[in-house]
Amino acid sequence: MIVTVTLNPALDLTYAVDALVPHDSHRVSDVVERPGGKGLNVARVLHALGEPVLATGLLGGTTGDRVARLLTADGVRSRFVRIAGESRRTVAVVDRADATGFWEPGPRVTPGEWSLFVAEFRELLGPATVVTLSGSLPPGVPIGAYASLIALAAAAGVPTVLDTSGPALLAGLRTAPSVAKPNIHELTGVLTRPLPGPQGLADAVRAVATGPVVVSRGSAGLVAITGDEMWECAPPAAIEGNPTGAGDACVAALARGLRDHTPWPDLLADAVALSAAAVAAPAAGAFDPEIYRHTRPTAALVGGTRARTHR
Amino acid sequence: MIVTVTLNPALDLTYAVDALVPHDSHRVSDVVERPGGKGLNVARVLHALGEPVLATGLLGGTTGDRVARLLTADGVRSRFVRIAGESRRTVAVVDRADATGFWEPGPRVTPGEWSLFVAEFRELLGPATVVTLSGSLPPGVPIGAYASLIALAAAAGVPTVLDTSGPALLAGLRTAPSVAKPNIHELTGVLTRPLPGPQGLADAVRAVATGPVVVSRGSAGLVAITGDEMWECAPPAAIEGNPTGAGDACVAALARGLRDHTPWPDLLADAVALSAAAVAAPAAGAFDPEIYRHTRPTAALVGGTRARTHR
Repeated sequence: MIVTVTLNPALDLTYAVDALVPHDSHRVSDVVERPGGKGLNVARVLHALGEPVLATGLLGGTTGDRVARLLTADGVRSRFVRIAGESRRTVAVVDRADATGFWEPGPRVTPGEWSLFVAEFRELLGPATVVTLSGSLPPGVPIGAYASLIALAAAAGVPTVLDTSGPALLAGLRTAPSVAKPNIHELTGVLTRPLPGPQGLADAVRAVATGPVVVSRGSAGLVAITGDEMWECAPPAAIEGNPTGAGDACVAALARGLRDHTPWPDLLADAVALSAAAVAAPAAGAFDPEIYRHTRPTAALVGGTRARTHR
Repeated sequence: MIVTVTLNPALDLTYAVDALVPHDSHRVSDVVERPGGKGLNVARVLHALGEPVLATGLLGGTTGDRVARLLTADGVRSRFVRIAGESRRTVAVVDRADATGFWEPGPRVTPGEWSLFVAEFRELLGPATVVTLSGSLPPGVPIGAYASLIALAAAAGVPTVLDTSGPALLAGLRTAPSVAKPNIHELTGVLTRPLPGPQGLADAVRAVATGPVVVSRGSAGLVAITGDEMWECAPPAAIEGNPTGAGDACVAALARGLRDHTPWPDLLADAVALSAAAVAAPAAGAFDPEIYRHTRPTAALVGGTRARTHR
């Protein structure tokens, strides 16, 4: 089974209002609750693909209970370590124009709770085929947390996909996850040199990363940079929709592909198609199966522009 | 004991942000959670006054669990009827300028759940000395709900304080609660005739209400209108602070006064002082004990302006 790690999951609330007016009161006409946090989106996409998946991470309080119940209602198996703090919420207020987001910081995790999680993670490495590590670290979890988990997984022979940002990304890149999947903004946030064109990007990535990196660039598609190769793959056309969760669908595709030893060109085409299908679905953690089916062969067939480029 | 009824309680969330910018994302720097809903504020004020109190009403889901836990943490005893729906949240986003509110609508209550509550309410009338009925009715609860509860309490010889608005207030006023406590806006919302001065207000109230009505008017204080008397009482000076919850403190004072058969002048002075002390406290459901002690004798000593007026 694929194990998805979410250390800072959330209860995602979407509030529908007529128009957001600062310093006024608003009656919310509709409330949607979803299990949130990038790793939970990965788990939901994998489950919808029919893949065996187990969600793990840290959950606390009644908000954590609610997240666990919503995941169960979605049919996703989970085994979370309980913490004393209250899991965070995110609130997206959607009016006729756009969404306004409010993100709670998340609970402080104690060293004892982190140790319990590491022990649980070691156990889960037994049945795991691949591990995904997604999202921000809650306060109290060491910056090198993902690096430690990657090292434990590598020692157990389990491949890893890392999708995070900032110092946690930088620390992770140096520990060689099987694939790191930052988006272009997260990547440039940790690179020290400028990126003149694809070759500049590849050189900059190789300077900090010790393993393959797949960079997501929105409708421009994916670039995979390995030790000596570079592959590019883009969807045949930009997809209209909600880009939140597209990166998580990409991680789901990469995890499945790692498990199946899918070659890079097919793997990237699949990840591009699943990301596009996620954009077409209204909510993060879901995808449009029709768009997935249509986009996959088209993405795979986009022509190459350079010797090492698949486009 | 005083029984406080809250049919549509809430989990009140206060989010601190730098500045609210529509259609932007905001990292919330601080989250405060409180048990919300007017009746829970009444219960917390009474508990802080050292009065025996029991909070009842309808709670559902993990949000309801959280409300119950927060009440218990505050030391307030409660006995809620559980419903299948999820209790609502309110979110107040506070920036440097002011607060922006988002109110969830609340769960739909089934006829069976409402019947269960009425049965529970009948049981609680045994030990109850006074019942307070506060706030809005959730979807599914009949508009005449408060009127029914007032009639049951009256039959059991238990006095009632009603604090609600709209059609539920109008239906309640006609069933003669021992005291109804609308604010001036809630009252004018259900009155059909204009209110030229205090006598006009009294005439209009007597046209729709069959029992005493105490009208709260912010810093202008309280007016009590009974069958043949009218009393006014105002704080010695306007208090700076947060007016949310001042009406609930007033209801708490009225409930205690009803139980103790406090005469109108003393009762109004106490209610004015406790309301002022609630304005001085930053959060609804709390009051500033110093302000309460200082204001009570001052409010009681404000001179009368008419034969039937205590000011």
